[in-house]
Formats: sequence, structure tokens, C-alpha cells
Amino acid sequence: MLTAIEKAGILVEALPYIRKFFGKTIVIKYGGHAMTDEKLKQAVMTDVILMKYVGINPVIVHGGGPEINHLLDRLGMKSSFIQGLRVTDRETMEVVEMVLVGKVNKEIVSLLNQNGGKAVGLSGKDGQLIEARKKFLTPFNGEEDQIYELGFVGEVARINPEIIETVVEKGYIPVVAPVGVGADGESYNINADYVAGAIAAALQADKLILLTDVEGIYRKFGDASTLYSLVRLAEIPGLINEGVISGGMIPKVQCCIQAIQGGVSTAHILDGRIAHSILLEIFTDQGIGTMVVR
Amino acid sequence: MLTAIEKAGILVEALPYIRKFFGKTIVIKYGGHAMTDEKLKQAVMTDVILMKYVGINPVIVHGGGPEINHLLDRLGMKSSFIQGLRVTDRETMEVVEMVLVGKVNKEIVSLLNQNGGKAVGLSGKDGQLIEARKKFLTPFNGEEDQIYELGFVGEVARINPEIIETVVEKGYIPVVAPVGVGADGESYNINADYVAGAIAAALQADKLILLTDVEGIYRKFGDASTLYSLVRLAEIPGLINEGVISGGMIPKVQCCIQAIQGGVSTAHILDGRIAHSILLEIFTDQGIGTMVVR
Amino acid sequence: MLTAIEKAGILVEALPYIRKFFGKTIVIKYGGHAMTDEKLKQAVMTDVILMKYVGINPVIVHGGGPEINHLLDRLGMKSSFIQGLRVTDRETMEVVEMVLVGKVNKEIVSLLNQNGGKAVGLSGKDGQLIEARKKFLTPFNGEEDQIYELGFVGEVARINPEIIETVVEKGYIPVVAPVGVGADGESYNINADYVAGAIAAALQADKLILLTDVEGIYRKFGDASTLYSLVRLAEIPGLINEGVISGGMIPKVQCCIQAIQGGVSTAHILDGRIAHSILLEIFTDQGIGTMVVR
Amino acid sequence: MLTAIEKAGILVEALPYIRKFFGKTIVIKYGGHAMTDEKLKQAVMTDVILMKYVGINPVIVHGGGPEINHLLDRLGMKSSFIQGLRVTDRETMEVVEMVLVGKVNKEIVSLLNQNGGKAVGLSGKDGQLIEARKKFLTPFNGEEDQIYELGFVGEVARINPEIIETVVEKGYIPVVAPVGVGADGESYNINADYVAGAIAAALQADKLILLTDVEGIYRKFGDASTLYSLVRLAEIPGLINEGVISGGMIPKVQCCIQAIQGGVSTAHILDGRIAHSILLEIFTDQGIGTMVVR
Amino acid sequence: MLTAIEKAGILVEALPYIRKFFGKTIVIKYGGHAMTDEKLKQAVMTDVILMKYVGINPVIVHGGGPEINHLLDRLGMKSSFIQGLRVTDRETMEVVEMVLVGKVNKEIVSLLNQNGGKAVGLSGKDGQLIEARKKFLTPFNGEEDQIYELGFVGEVARINPEIIETVVEKGYIPVVAPVGVGADGESYNINADYVAGAIAAALQADKLILLTDVEGIYRKFGDASTLYSLVRLAEIPGLINEGVISGGMIPKVQCCIQAIQGGVSTAHILDGRIAHSILLEIFTDQGIGTMVVR
Amino acid sequence: MLTAIEKAGILVEALPYIRKFFGKTIVIKYGGHAMTDEKLKQAVMTDVILMKYVGINPVIVHGGGPEINHLLDRLGMKSSFIQGLRVTDRETMEVVEMVLVGKVNKEIVSLLNQNGGKAVGLSGKDGQLIEARKKFLTPFNGEEDQIYELGFVGEVARINPEIIETVVEKGYIPVVAPVGVGADGESYNINADYVAGAIAAALQADKLILLTDVEGIYRKFGDASTLYSLVRLAEIPGLINEGVISGGMIPKVQCCIQAIQGGVSTAHILDGRIAHSILLEIFTDQGIGTMVVR
Repeated sequence: MLTAIEKAGILVEALPYIRKFFGKTIVIKYGGHAMTDEKLKQAVMTDVILMKYVGINPVIVHGGGPEINHLLDRLGMKSSFIQGLRVTDRETMEVVEMVLVGKVNKEIVSLLNQNGGKAVGLSGKDGQLIEARKKFLTPFNGEEDQIYELGFVGEVARINPEIIETVVEKGYIPVVAPVGVGADGESYNINADYVAGAIAAALQADKLILLTDVEGIYRKFGDASTLYSLVRLAEIPGLINEGVISGGMIPKVQCCIQAIQGGVSTAHILDGRIAHSILLEIFTDQGIGTMVVR
Repeated sequence: MLTAIEKAGILVEALPYIRKFFGKTIVIKYGGHAMTDEKLKQAVMTDVILMKYVGINPVIVHGGGPEINHLLDRLGMKSSFIQGLRVTDRETMEVVEMVLVGKVNKEIVSLLNQNGGKAVGLSGKDGQLIEARKKFLTPFNGEEDQIYELGFVGEVARINPEIIETVVEKGYIPVVAPVGVGADGESYNINADYVAGAIAAALQADKLILLTDVEGIYRKFGDASTLYSLVRLAEIPGLINEGVISGGMIPKVQCCIQAIQGGVSTAHILDGRIAHSILLEIFTDQGIGTMVVR
Repeated sequence: MLTAIEKAGILVEALPYIRKFFGKTIVIKYGGHAMTDEKLKQAVMTDVILMKYVGINPVIVHGGGPEINHLLDRLGMKSSFIQGLRVTDRETMEVVEMVLVGKVNKEIVSLLNQNGGKAVGLSGKDGQLIEARKKFLTPFNGEEDQIYELGFVGEVARINPEIIETVVEKGYIPVVAPVGVGADGESYNINADYVAGAIAAALQADKLILLTDVEGIYRKFGDASTLYSLVRLAEIPGLINEGVISGGMIPKVQCCIQAIQGGVSTAHILDGRIAHSILLEIFTDQGIGTMVVR
Repeated sequence: MLTAIEKAGILVEALPYIRKFFGKTIVIKYGGHAMTDEKLKQAVMTDVILMKYVGINPVIVHGGGPEINHLLDRLGMKSSFIQGLRVTDRETMEVVEMVLVGKVNKEIVSLLNQNGGKAVGLSGKDGQLIEARKKFLTPFNGEEDQIYELGFVGEVARINPEIIETVVEKGYIPVVAPVGVGADGESYNINADYVAGAIAAALQADKLILLTDVEGIYRKFGDASTLYSLVRLAEIPGLINEGVISGGMIPKVQCCIQAIQGGVSTAHILDGRIAHSILLEIFTDQGIGTMVVR
Repeated sequence: MLTAIEKAGILVEALPYIRKFFGKTIVIKYGGHAMTDEKLKQAVMTDVILMKYVGINPVIVHGGGPEINHLLDRLGMKSSFIQGLRVTDRETMEVVEMVLVGKVNKEIVSLLNQNGGKAVGLSGKDGQLIEARKKFLTPFNGEEDQIYELGFVGEVARINPEIIETVVEKGYIPVVAPVGVGADGESYNINADYVAGAIAAALQADKLILLTDVEGIYRKFGDASTLYSLVRLAEIPGLINEGVISGGMIPKVQCCIQAIQGGVSTAHILDGRIAHSILLEIFTDQGIGTMVVR
Repeated sequence: MLTAIEKAGILVEALPYIRKFFGKTIVIKYGGHAMTDEKLKQAVMTDVILMKYVGINPVIVHGGGPEINHLLDRLGMKSSFIQGLRVTDRETMEVVEMVLVGKVNKEIVSLLNQNGGKAVGLSGKDGQLIEARKKFLTPFNGEEDQIYELGFVGEVARINPEIIETVVEKGYIPVVAPVGVGADGESYNINADYVAGAIAAALQADKLILLTDVEGIYRKFGDASTLYSLVRLAEIPGLINEGVISGGMIPKVQCCIQAIQGGVSTAHILDGRIAHSILLEIFTDQGIGTMVVR
């Protein structure tokens, strides 16, 4: 049981952060364990609503979690993969969109509303928020003359942030499903990390937060004492060459780079498995995860 | 081929209607053939965008069409029915919501955007737009002591129109999926006609238009010459008693009654199978469908 | 009698034009037959009001028609002419101003109001709308050392469009009489075509429309099949040299040039003798008159 | 030559009046000698502009002066009179309108602009400012069964003050010609005193000032020492019965009554033959003319 | 050292309170030890700034502390007292005003600014914030025919809160010195508790907080376990009769009553000797002091 | 006794000045006799309120007058002086601040309010209006290696004019006490002339007026006929070299220079011993004092 003075201390510790982020926009990529564990889910919602109440404008971009696979399985639809990415034909894309927009997005919206927030769900089609183009994979090792495409897997061509600004201005928390729309009106599945990064840049957000299932970037993987609390843009190429940043961390770091180059002040790779890691990152002196800066 | 003078004549004929409806809100229940036939679909989109451009604020509420059944079938989910209404357990409701919000709604939004509109899709969860409660069926013939419930089939408890007003103010066309949210955060499937009527009342709309697959209310069913072009509220009980209004027409007429009693000026039962029936109803002297007024 | 589908077709055809001109300003020089024939008059008023209702901002600049001569005759005042322009002494100018501002302008204002518009008449003195300076004629053939002046015949020195913007903002249609005011407070009679062109430039209008009593510019005068539907600025000197553009068409074309060089997108020479030619030009695919573009 | 201290004294004396009338509307009926004498004209313009600069909103309604007769004479048009009012056929009305709107109004507008004001002329047709109806004269002495009409002589049916408010809001001084518009779009000549009174009431003005060619209301006509400086509404019927108020003063007093009953605080009958009588009335302790109050 | 989870817990605990008080006004009477002890002073400043940053509008009313006596002593000015209140002649009042407005107020303003707030000091003369009248003391025991006055000791006649609203709207924290101004322009010294209560009512504040040097109201004085955490208006007369509320607590409770009757939701008697007692009261579940409610 | 026509003449004479200064800011340094003589005091207040009412935004910066010495004397505090400036230790500064902010400022505020103005007093601490730094004196004659400091005597480091703009916008007259605040939160006494000049520059005022106890700058001191009515920046170095500008006039002229170089149009050295000298300077053709321009 905390004493009154300890309680007051925490609130006082939060003050400079509240001051610093007042009126700023923070884009949160919401995914991983934080999206499936009931307690973590609740904690993220609380963190987001708290941010809103102290004058920060949070924007949530969510991934799909295991729900997509679940429905594909039930429908008996099999997928092939290239470089770990699912080849997405039109029928698969329909399932992806239904799950992302009609299920996952709506659950987050509802949860925020149940906890005292005012949320509005958006897909990339609403107000043409996310204009997409087909993503082409250039091959790895030496197959220089082959370019793969993955059907309706897309990348961000352009963000039209007006609809986000419209709802934020009226006090709503926007919750964005990472479905883009092509010039032809077709739906495209886009990696939520990239969508979050692009939206953060388009909104000139102050922070991009990627909630992940790791603690951040390690010098020595698995050795908590070697966690980088801060990485500068200039150091990243070296870290990739050395293999310190590798595998699934590479695209996450790329999102951070793009966001920062687009005008976002800092990007954070946070451990979503810790309850209230967003809150701790934003409002306390507690060092959490890895921060990427210019 | 029309002459220039004929063309000008039509535009001139539209003038008093443009003037009359300038700045007014018109809620359109979009369903039936007009939602499945490609040409009719295109025509409705055009009509809606035209309305927007001449200063009217259209709001679309859509039904689900055959898509829900289609997905339920593919998933091998069977439904039981009471009084023609599907008993909707949680799993079924999930499917309903995914299809309505993640597929049908998004297709309409995308189609409007492709045709030059600026649309935003909303479900009843967005900004708590549609608060729902469980719908209870009182039995028909004499089974007075039995009340049926249908799981997550709901009715409108309250409309919070702020999110619609927010997006309309910025020039967007709102497209609403008829999924309500209960006090507990659960999703409820609600008949789209009723949602349209309740939203029309909440927005103090000028008109409610129900796009249906009939021409309107007939004195003698099947005899086009007996179509009522206008029915007053006071006449309706008599028409129901005489059996002139019966079957599936009864709930539609009830929506019209509720909307008008809630402050909407006129309600229209229009034949959605005729291309541009909305346009003709709103902008020409052409008599179309049945209009219900106080 | 048109079918419903034909009616809808016209309205649908108008949609892209409504969209295109939404919020744009269109300046119309109103004169010639369209100002004396009762039916044409009525058609112009309807066209202007329709434009206003679909979100376009029309501005009317009118000429004087035969009314000025009529009153001068009744007063027994004779005029001398130089290069076809009336030498205008102070007494004549008073008559001109009374007719333009106190009669013609007021009739147009009243006619628009009677037809459901909200019009406000303005002369160049109101809010110093049209600052004028004396116009000097350089002589034609070789009389190089003589410069004519015509008394109170003026040209536009500067447009102060604030008063037009003030009334447009509040939903009024401005109707402008082409009387300018000199630095000394004196009235000057200015050709309405030039006033229309200068106002179009000052307002950064999208279109300048000159309603005339010809169909447009012909390759071969009198041969309807040789009407130019589009002329580019660069072609005009050549067309004048060839004599294709000559006589009274020259000053009209000069107005178009000045407007376009001042930032107006397109200028149109339309046949005011055809009812609703403005409407047809703006809202249909119908090719009408000659359009001048950069 | 005034001393500095005397100058300062006057300005200081003006302070409470400036404070009192800040943001208030004052309607001035401008006519009589003040409209024909060059020096008085100049003085009125200066007074009006000064009012505007210290935060008062002056609105001018002008009469026609001798100009109307002058043009009618030149055109050889003769008029008959009933009860001293000119019978006005359509042709005469055209002349009246041209002179009032196209000459007198424009001269005042130009004079204000030349002196540093920003004026806009308005007739009763602009924005339907003055809706008129035909005026019927009930006969004087005992001819009870006869009612005279005077053609296009009208009275105020309704004032639509929006256009005045629109221009005042943007810093313009509105100058109104007393021409009304009938339901049929016809022009009506209305007594400028009545127009001023009706506009003052419609604008909920603070003051109505009638500039006349008398010093005010006298107990004994011609004896300056018997000038009433203040008359209350309740005293007026008695003063009329006693013959103290008689002749041309009666309609002026009626305007005052109507204005005050319509919500105007005070009405003033001022001697327009004294230069700056408006200024002295509004900004000094100097007693000038007769003030009518509730 | 607190764990991350404990830190997060406190912030989460604060959320409902942040939500509840968002946009609300809280008036704080600042006095006693909290104004003389350096650490407590710092804590109050931090609390106030934190409130401001999370969207609450704090308004500070301060007392004078020992500074007034100090200066009076140095000037060799002696005071007489009636019923414990200093008789305040004009010379004394000058000293009081100089200390309150020129020293105490400015120190608080400066301290808030040094800590990241934006404060503005106000006396009751600024914008006529506190209109005062002379306070008359009705005698205690039976001396019914004697009424005392205390010179320039006043009470609140009227609060003009516009200047507070003006600065709050622009993000400033108003700091008010309890000096009122009489109808004659004279300064009056008013008890800061009463000023705080009256300002709270005038602003329709949500809360009035009186920072005192006691823990609150006790059933048994000195027995911490008998502290009332909540007292209702209706109970107060009884508590006074029983002697539970007595002495210096009576005027404090009267301020609370007046504030609540004037529309303030709750009034609090808080122990200013505990650091951050305001913060704990507003943002935690911690029960602190005595709350008075309707 | 002035005639009506003379009165009107003065008001008319004021018109071009009212027009010229409408919406402009004028900063007045208020000090000297005008601050101690009751009649002059009253006259200055009237002048300032008149300015406000005719649309000018006056800002008053006041000095301390003899009040500071008076209180220091009563407290038995002695001061030493360097180059005529009082060495100000912390204890002295406290007295200075109490007198300036808690007495002199409040009297001016109250006097303006009593006369119909709406005034708000500000010190340099309010909204960090005047950021100060310690002032160092470079020695006169050859003592090049010695720099004096005077304790809490400061100079302007930066003006933050937001709080002035906030209150002006709402119709208040700001009255500023020349107390600055150091980076450390300490108070600094700053010469009021310099504060006035710096505030004038920060507000981009149109005029700076220094009310002094001399008539202006003389060619030959004491010979009224040699008063400079206008001095240009470029002439000043010469005038100082010649000894025409000398002694206490030098710092005043320096303030004028700084204000003008900071963007103020004109600076005036006015004789505050003449009642209404501000009024006469601003609103009449009367030549008063010396004007400094670029």
C-alpha cells in the first residue's frame, strides 16, 4: 500500500511530461500480446484514455492478430507465402478486411467507449485515409531479375489525414484499421507498422510508439542489461551490418526511420507485454524500451 | 437525343427543389435490388453525390443484403428463425458485424469515393452512434404469456448523432452500418429500416427515404394505377385494418410513422429497382413511390 | 414529354460540372437581346439563380441597352460620336448613370428577387468598387499626333472587390452597373465588357461569360459549321491579322484576353439569343459558343 | 482662435457621449437644405464619418430634393396632386426611381467616399430591403366613402434589414434611397421620413434623427424661446389638438412615434440648416432641436 | 523505490478524476503554513500547475500571512482590534494593500512562473473584480444597540469575474489578492476565505478548497479518528450548536455554505500542512480533510 | 463660452486624427507632475479613456513618483547612489515593488475605473511581461576598467506582450508597473521610460508618448521660441554633441530612438504639466512638445 506522499510523488513526476506533450499527437501501433491478453488490453485502453484526458491526441493503428488466420481456417482457405508474407488474392483480402474492419477495429472502439473514451473506427477507405499501391518484393539473394507481387498486399502511397483531424478536433480517439484503397477502389492489406509510421508523418506527430512483443533493441539478444535505451538514425546502418538489428526488427526500425525522416520527433519500440508500458514511457522517468531519434 | 432546350428544361425544373432542400438532411435506407444490381448501385451513388453537391446532406443507412447468409453458409452456421427473424447468437452476430461493417459498408464508402464523393463509414459503435437494447418479440395470436428474444437482435435505445454531424460538417457523406452497441459493449443487429428512421429523427432530417423492391403502397396490389402517391398518418391505421398495408410493408410504414412523429417532414417508400428513383423523387415533378406525411 | 430516365440522365450529366464549379466565381456580362426579350430575360435569371443554388457564385455585370438612348431622345439631347463611341459630357453622363443605376440595374435586381434569388445592385461608386480614369483614344490611320478624349467615358483603373465579396459571402447575387468613379469623385461610363473582365480578374473568377448577339467566333462568318468552339490566346493575333476576328468582336476578345491574363481560367463568348445558353454551357456536354483559354 | 484648453474641453465634453453611443445605430433622415447647400452637405458628410470613426453605426436615408421635379419638367411630365401628394403613374415612378437611386443616392455615396468614409448605396429592392404596399388616403373632411390612391405611392409593409447589417458589419455606411418594392416587383415611392422611422425600428436603432428645415417644435411658432427641447409620447395628442403640432410637422412627429413604439430610444427633429447640427446634438451638451421620447 | 507497476497504478487511479474535473474551475484559498513553509509552498505551486495541465482551471485567492504585521511593526503602526478583527484606518489599509498586492501576490505569481506555469496577479481593483462595501459587526452578547465598523475592513458586494475569465481563457492562472474596491474607489481589506467563496460562486466553480492549518472538522478535537470526511449543509447548524464546529472554524464553514448555496458543487477544508494535499484530494482515492456538500 | 460652431469645429478637426489612429496602439509613459497634481491626474485619465473610446488602444507605463522615497524614509532605509541611480539591495527592492505594484499602480487602475474606463494593472511578473537582467554601468571619465552594478536595478531583456494583448482584446486598459523579473525569479527595478519604449516596440505601437516636466527639446534652453517640434533620428547625435540634448533628456531621447528603431512610428516628449497635453497632441492641429521620427 502506497503512502499519500508516494502517490503525490508519482503525479508530480508526471507533470513535466504532461506539460511537454500537451496538444501533441502520438501514434500508437497496437498489436502483439497487448491485443490478445485481456489484462494488457484493458491497460492499453486506460493508457490511451488517460493520454486523451491530459490533452494529448492519441491515434491508434491496430494489426490483425490471430483472428485473420482463424477465420481463414474456418473457411478452409489456404495461403501460400513469399518471404514470409501471405499471398493475398481477392477472396483472402475480403476476409482480411472483414476481420480487421468489422471485428478487431470495432472491438477496440467499443472497449475505449466502455472505458470512458470517445472512439471512432476508421479504415483506409474512410475519407480515402490510406491510398495504397501494390507492393512489389525485390528478391533477396541474387535473383535480380525476378520481382514478386503478393496480390492485394500493398504499401502506403499517400495518407489523407483530414478525416483523422476532423474527428480528433471534436474529441474522438481515431482507431485505424490498416486497409488501404487502390486507385481502382480495391482493398489492400498493409503492414500496420508501416501504416502507423506513415500516419505519424502525415500528422506531424510528436511520437510514434510501436507496441511489440520484445523489450527493444539489444546489443546482445537475451541479455537485458544490453538493451539500447536510445538509438540515433546514424547508428542504424552499422547496427544492421553488425547483425544487432536483424530479422523482424528490421521492418520495425524502418518504420521508425521513415517516421522520423517525415518529421516525427521520436519513435519508440516498446514492450507491449508489460502492462501500462505506454503510460510509463510517456509519463514517468522510468526508462522503457528503445527510443529512436534523429 | 435530347435537344438543348429539353436539357435546359430539366435543369430548370430541378431549381425549386434544389432551393427547397438546400442545407437539409435526407436519410436514405439503402437496400434490396439497388444494392445488388451493378447499374442500380452506380445510379444510387450518383444520386447521393449529386445531392451532396447541390447542398443537401445525405446520410446512408444500409442493410446487409445476401452477403450475411453467404458467409454463414460458407462457415456452415445454421440459424433458427422466430417470426421470420433470425435468432442471433454471439458467434452469428460476429459474422453479421464483420459482413456489415467490414464488407458491405466499406464497399459503399469506396464506391462513393470512386465516384467523386467523400464518404466515411460508421458503425453504431463509432462515437456510440447507435445505443441498442435487446429486442423482445411479443407473440402474435393469443400466446400472451410468452415473450421471445432473439439473442443479439436489438432495437434502437438511443441515437448519439454527434459523430454524424461532425463528419457532415466537414463535407463527408456518412454511411452507417446498422449494428448497435449495448450498455455492456455487446454488438446488436438492428433492422436497417428502423435505424434509418431513428437517425432521421435524431438529425431532425427533412426526409426519410426507404429504397425498397416495391413501387410503394397500392390500393390493389399489382394494379399500378392504384398506387398511393400520398398517405397521411391518420389514414394508416385504417389501411392496416383493411389489409391494404400488410406483411413486410407494415414495419416499413412503422419506421415512417416513427420518423415523422420524431420531427421528420416526409417519409418515402421508393422503388429502388428504378434507376435514379431518388433523383427523380427529389429533383423532378415526376410522381414516384408513396410519400407519408403527418 | 421526356421519360423519367431521360430526366435523370440530364441531372446526372450535370453532376461533374456542379462538382467542378462548386464554390467558384463566374462573372457574366449581361447584355444584348438577352436583356430586352422577356423570355430570354426570364431564362437568364433562372440560370443565375440555379448557379447560386448549386454553390456557384455568379456576379452579373450589365450593359445599358436601348434605355439610355431612349431617355436622351426624350430629353432632346444629341450626341456626337468618335470611333463609334459617344462623346459624353457631364449632363449626358448624369442621364447615363440614372438609367444604368436607377433603372436597368434595379430591374435586374428585382427580377432576380422575384424569382427566388437574393440580389443586391452595386454601382462602381459603392465601396469604390470601380475606380475609373478618363479613356483616351489613339487615332486609327496615321493621325499619329492626335489623341481623342470622350468626356466622361472611362476605363477601369482599379477594382476594389471587397463590397462584392461582402455580399457574396452572405448569399447575395451582386448585380453591377458599369459606372466608374474618378479620383475626383466624378462618374465615368465604362464599357460593360471591360468592367466584367476586370471584375473577373479581381475576383480571380473561374469563368468570364460574355452574353452576346452572335454565336461565337466563326472561321467563315455566317457558316455555322465553322464556329470555333475553342480558341487559345496564342492563336488570337493570327486570327485578327487574317480578319477572322474583326469589328465589334475585337474588343470582346480583348476583354477575354485581359481576364485570362489576370488569372481567370476560361472566357466564353456565348449566344445570348438562345434561351438558357449559360446553363447549357455550364452544366451540359452541349458545345455552345466559343471558349477562350490560355 | 481657440486656446488649447478650450479645444481639449470640447473633446472632453464629447467623451460621455462617445461612450454612450459606442456600437449603437443611429438612423438619419437626410433632406431639406442640408441636401442642397454645398457647405451644409459637406458638414453632414463629415458628421456621419466622425460618428462612424468613434464606433457609432450611422445609416442614412435620403429624400429626393428638387431633382425629381427638375427631370419631370425637362421631360414635360405634369403631375396631379391629392392632399399635397403627387399622383405617381408608372412612367413618373420610373423617373422618381432613376433620380433617387441613380443620381441622389450615388452623389451621397460618392461624397462620403471622397471624404474618407466607405459608403454603399442601397435601394429598397436590394436584398428586398423595403417591402412596400400601395398607400391609400382616407379623405379629410367628411367625404367618408371615398378612398384615394396615388398610383405607385407606397408605404412600408416590411423592412428586411439583413443587407444593411451585412454592409455595416464590414465597416460600410449604408445610404438608402426610399424606393420600396411591391409583392409584384413594382417600385413604390415612399416618404423618406417614414422609411427612416421603419428602418430605425427594424434595426432597433438607438436614435432616429430627422434633419428638417425648422428648428424643432415651438410652443409659439417663430418665438425661439418657446422651442420644446423634449416632448414625451403622451403629450403629443394634446399638442396636436391644441394646434401646436400641425401641418407638415404632423407626419414627422408620426415617424418619431412609430420609431419609438418600435423600440428606438429617442427621435430628434433637428434643424438641418445649422452646420454640424447632428454632431452638436450627439456629442455636446448643446441643446439642439426637439427630442421625442417615450 | 516504487516499481513501474505501482507508478502506473497511481496514474491510472488518477484517470477518473482527471476525466471528472476536465474543464472545471477549482478555487483555492491559499494561506497558513502552506504559504510560509518553503517546501509546502513549492508543493502547492506544483499541484496548481499540474491541475492546469490536465485541463482544470485553478484560481488562487491568497491571504496575507505574517507579512502585513511585519511591515506595520517596522513602520511603528499600532492597531486596535474588535472581535479579533483589526480596525483598519486609511494609512493601515495602504500598508495592507502594498503587502498583499505588491509583495505576497507577486511572489506567488513569480513562483508559479518559475515552475512552468503562466500566472497573472489580480487585485480586486483590476477590472473591478471585487466590489466591496464596509463590513459592520453586529455585537455579540446583548449589546444590541451597538454596531461596530472597522474602517476599511470590507465584505464582498459583488464579483465581476470577466477579468478572471479573460485570463483563464488564454491559459493563465489567476492569483487574486483579497483587496476590494468601494463605490468611492477606496480600498477595502476583505477576509480571503470569503473572497474565495464569492469568486467560486461567481465563476460557478466545481470546487472550493480552503487550505488551512487543521486537518478538517473533528467530532472530538485532537482525535484523528473522529475526522468528518463529509458534512452536509443540513447538518451544520446542529454541529455548531453542539460546539463541534466552533471558533475560527465557523467563518470557514460559512464560506463553504455560501459557495455551495451559490452553485459550487463541493467545498473542502484541507490540511495545508501536508505536502500535496490538494493533489491527493483531487486525483486520488485518498480521503483527505472534510468535504462539505449540499 | 464657446459657440456651437466652435465646438463643432474642434470635433471636426479631430476627425482625421481619429481616423488615423483607429485601432492603433499608443504607449504612454506616465510620470512627473502629471502623476502628483490632482487636476493633471484627472486630465490624463480622461484623455486615456477618450482614446480608448474612439478606438485607440492606450497602454500606460507609470513611474514611481515620490512615494518610494517616502516609504523608504519612514522605514529609515538609506540609499547610496552611483551616477544618480539608487543602489538597490533586496530589501530596498521589496519596498520599491510594494509601492509601485501595490500602491501607485492600483491608484491609477482605480482612477481609470472610477472615470468609466476598464483598467487592469500589470507588473512585469504577470505573464512574465518584463524579463529583466541586471544593469551594469560603464563608468564615465576614463575609469575604463571599472564596471558598476546597482543591485536589483535592471534593464529590459525581453518583453512578452501576450498578457497585454489578452486584456486589450477584451477592452481593458493595461497599466504597467516597471518591475521586471530575472531568470532567477528576482524582482528588478527598471526605469519606466525604458520599459515604455520596449513595450511600445514589442507591441509595434504607433506612438510612444513620454509625459515629462519639460516642454520638449529646446535649441536654447528656456527660450520657448526655440522648441524643436520635430527631430529626426539622424540629427540626434549632432544635437548631443552640441550639448543641445543633455542631462536627463539624454536617456529620454535614447528611449525614443530604441522605440523607433524597434518599429514604432513616432515618439513624443510632451509637457505633462499642461492639462490634456496628450489629447491635444493626438487629436488637434496644435503643435505640442517635440516629436522624434525616423
